[in-house]
Amino acid sequence: MCPGSYDPVTVGHLDVIERAAALYDEVVVAVLHNPAKQGTFTVDERIAFIENALAPEVRERVRVEPFAGRLLVDVCRDVEADVIVKGLRGGTDFAYELPMALMNRHLTGVETVFLPGAPEFEHVSSSLVKEVAKFGGDVTGLVPDDVLRALTEKLAEG
Amino acid sequence: MCPGSYDPVTVGHLDVIERAAALYDEVVVAVLHNPAKQGTFTVDERIAFIENALAPEVRERVRVEPFAGRLLVDVCRDVEADVIVKGLRGGTDFAYELPMALMNRHLTGVETVFLPGAPEFEHVSSSLVKEVAKFGGDVTGLVPDDVLRALTEKLAEG
Amino acid sequence: MCPGSYDPVTVGHLDVIERAAALYDEVVVAVLHNPAKQGTFTVDERIAFIENALAPEVRERVRVEPFAGRLLVDVCRDVEADVIVKGLRGGTDFAYELPMALMNRHLTGVETVFLPGAPEFEHVSSSLVKEVAKFGGDVTGLVPDDVLRALTEKLAEG
Amino acid sequence: MCPGSYDPVTVGHLDVIERAAALYDEVVVAVLHNPAKQGTFTVDERIAFIENALAPEVRERVRVEPFAGRLLVDVCRDVEADVIVKGLRGGTDFAYELPMALMNRHLTGVETVFLPGAPEFEHVSSSLVKEVAKFGGDVTGLVPDDVLRALTEKLAEG
Amino acid sequence: MCPGSYDPVTVGHLDVIERAAALYDEVVVAVLHNPAKQGTFTVDERIAFIENALAPEVRERVRVEPFAGRLLVDVCRDVEADVIVKGLRGGTDFAYELPMALMNRHLTGVETVFLPGAPEFEHVSSSLVKEVAKFGGDVTGLVPDDVLRALTEKLAEG
Amino acid sequence: MCPGSYDPVTVGHLDVIERAAALYDEVVVAVLHNPAKQGTFTVDERIAFIENALAPEVRERVRVEPFAGRLLVDVCRDVEADVIVKGLRGGTDFAYELPMALMNRHLTGVETVFLPGAPEFEHVSSSLVKEVAKFGGDVTGLVPDDVLRALTEKLAEG
Repeated sequence: MCPGSYDPVTVGHLDVIERAAALYDEVVVAVLHNPAKQGTFTVDERIAFIENALAPEVRERVRVEPFAGRLLVDVCRDVEADVIVKGLRGGTDFAYELPMALMNRHLTGVETVFLPGAPEFEHVSSSLVKEVAKFGGDVTGLVPDDVLRALTEKLAEG
Repeated sequence: MCPGSYDPVTVGHLDVIERAAALYDEVVVAVLHNPAKQGTFTVDERIAFIENALAPEVRERVRVEPFAGRLLVDVCRDVEADVIVKGLRGGTDFAYELPMALMNRHLTGVETVFLPGAPEFEHVSSSLVKEVAKFGGDVTGLVPDDVLRALTEKLAEG
Repeated sequence: MCPGSYDPVTVGHLDVIERAAALYDEVVVAVLHNPAKQGTFTVDERIAFIENALAPEVRERVRVEPFAGRLLVDVCRDVEADVIVKGLRGGTDFAYELPMALMNRHLTGVETVFLPGAPEFEHVSSSLVKEVAKFGGDVTGLVPDDVLRALTEKLAEG
Repeated sequence: MCPGSYDPVTVGHLDVIERAAALYDEVVVAVLHNPAKQGTFTVDERIAFIENALAPEVRERVRVEPFAGRLLVDVCRDVEADVIVKGLRGGTDFAYELPMALMNRHLTGVETVFLPGAPEFEHVSSSLVKEVAKFGGDVTGLVPDDVLRALTEKLAEG
Repeated sequence: MCPGSYDPVTVGHLDVIERAAALYDEVVVAVLHNPAKQGTFTVDERIAFIENALAPEVRERVRVEPFAGRLLVDVCRDVEADVIVKGLRGGTDFAYELPMALMNRHLTGVETVFLPGAPEFEHVSSSLVKEVAKFGGDVTGLVPDDVLRALTEKLAEG
Repeated sequence: MCPGSYDPVTVGHLDVIERAAALYDEVVVAVLHNPAKQGTFTVDERIAFIENALAPEVRERVRVEPFAGRLLVDVCRDVEADVIVKGLRGGTDFAYELPMALMNRHLTGVETVFLPGAPEFEHVSSSLVKEVAKFGGDVTGLVPDDVLRALTEKLAEG
């Protein structure tokens, strides 16, 4: 189980998903969205971006599913996921994730395992990529190509 | 002086208050509220939750009082508190609290002392407890029983 | 290039600007503002506060300029700045600044160098100063004198 | 693969090993020792302590093996371990472990996954337990019972 | 109870001791030494340096005592200290001190409270001061005057 | 001024030296060695490794010089360096470097500026490279080629 809002997916997210797919037989990518609050992309767009970006041999072991208004641990129970996988970018990330990991373990016993993020993607987050794109910076290589096109269109629209 | 918004009080807060009460003759729990912004519970509810949760021998040395729109150091002066007591959950907490502690000391010389939080409550914060409760998770044992009931009622209402 | 929102400038900011001016022949202080969102002071006020606060021998090597709606790296290119200078107050500051520094370097190769903040200003940030002033605390010595007067007036107005 | 020097094993180590055994079909506990430098216990003693402390249903899926004078990644290859499992106690632990995790991945592609340590064992490390025991402190409950007896004997001997 | 090795005492240590003396009726400064390992100064010298450096009104409420080969919690029990006071210089300090604070609380229930170190002494530690002095750097103002003289003599001797 | 022990130089060090050479007209690489303690390589070997690894256009602006038994600030004064440049790999690095940076500024006013290390070299330190090489791991690409050969020879010898 790789949870996130993936609005939109970045090469850093894909790295974690692919590494999780190498470690586990089956991976569920849970796309958290909030029906009451509009994101940059719809949940269907976000799911499509992830599915399109995965190599075929990875994709067959990865399910991408939306979730909203529910506890992550309940989603884990439904999809029979034993483990939540999270990429970690720095000590501060860990401090932020730790209480949630402990809470999830307290609630249902589900474990969270942390994978150290690939350092070459240290600066790649959805929000920073969107901010750079918004002001006309080139984010080629930081997101999949169709995300790049979609971001450019969104910005042209206004 | 143990300041906080306590919206609502958790077992982690109570641990810090009780330990402060063991270290000092008199403890003032200052419940910070913002009249312009509604919290989950009213300031009177928050105060009642804290008072009800304290053991009688602790409670007689603890005063629970609201404050709003004032500097914490001025509240300290009014109640003749020499020391602000804060629980610390991790290195990040400390980084966040340090500038405020230094500023308060700069303003009136009042000291802030940090108590390391009990590690078994590392994952217990008001906001995480509320989020879990909101989505139907069981937070028994993380807040006092009357807070648990009140949270459940709030959620049933709305 | 010393970027920031400087709303308003503090003695901590001035320390970094003056030290940057001692290290480099020319320093551009880039005052980031958001036309869609009102700050405490207008961008012109913020610029005037900075210019007035600099010692004459420093000021002649420092240009203070507004920027908005653009990438910092593009502003750097326009003013021919090779280096972004940032003061660092703690390990958490660094964790926050690192992705932006890496992103900026990725975009145009511009470097970010970090100067350790003077520890005696550890508690001095624009937001904390404004909060203290708002509730009547004395911030003399934490901001230049004209900022102090302007803050007091703003608060009297309401 | 759970590597460590385990000199001696603590309840914190056992918690990580048991959680790893719940996540993976087979776990190798690799006991790192240095033939040139004497530890508190011999490598055989350390192995016996671990084996004795594991519940029968856990033990049948856990192999405890010594290793010395070799790269951990080579040991992983020999025992066909795909993953190194490490418990994390805080942000500082992560900062210390990260370069090793990245180096191991660089060398053979082996992944390191981090499990957040149970917070109630935050203060339990082999070195701190030994120091407390050496000066007569009671470490009951922090190490298995036979380790407790062995530590006491070692100290009586001198 | 303010424990440390104080080899030698610095202005940073004295700041913590004096602030502790303002918060508590009686303060015991426990000078940890290791009879098997020679420090820079003897334990008697270290004690004298501390006693001489304290202002008379502080000194009458401070006892300076050596301890060695014992648990700090046992020393606390003997001198009837309820609280261990430690100065904190940064997030890393806290990460280092936390396991010991939790262990001491586990052993006898004694609390450790942390005082944020005065930021202007952030760079002042016994070891850094000695290293600077050893290579001829001027440490005036970082240690009391008699420590300064004694350091200079030690270095002249060889 | 880029100080370090460079025993031996790594691609991470070279990245910082080359970036410093792009920022400053002249760079002095100060190779710290301790005559009383033998390193892996002699100071002359370390200097040669650095000089050989620099591109010709960088090398003409870089002087590599040994220093020992002296304060870094005095070396700075001798070579007329205004600035100490350090690469930073994480928040912990900064916490470690900060007191030294503040002490150096206190002693002579010399500034330390921090460059964020290239994240792809996050795992590359002299000590980790040597440990990997010692146990037969392949460190190609982490150090210059002649360092690689020299490390291999050293290990064959002894």
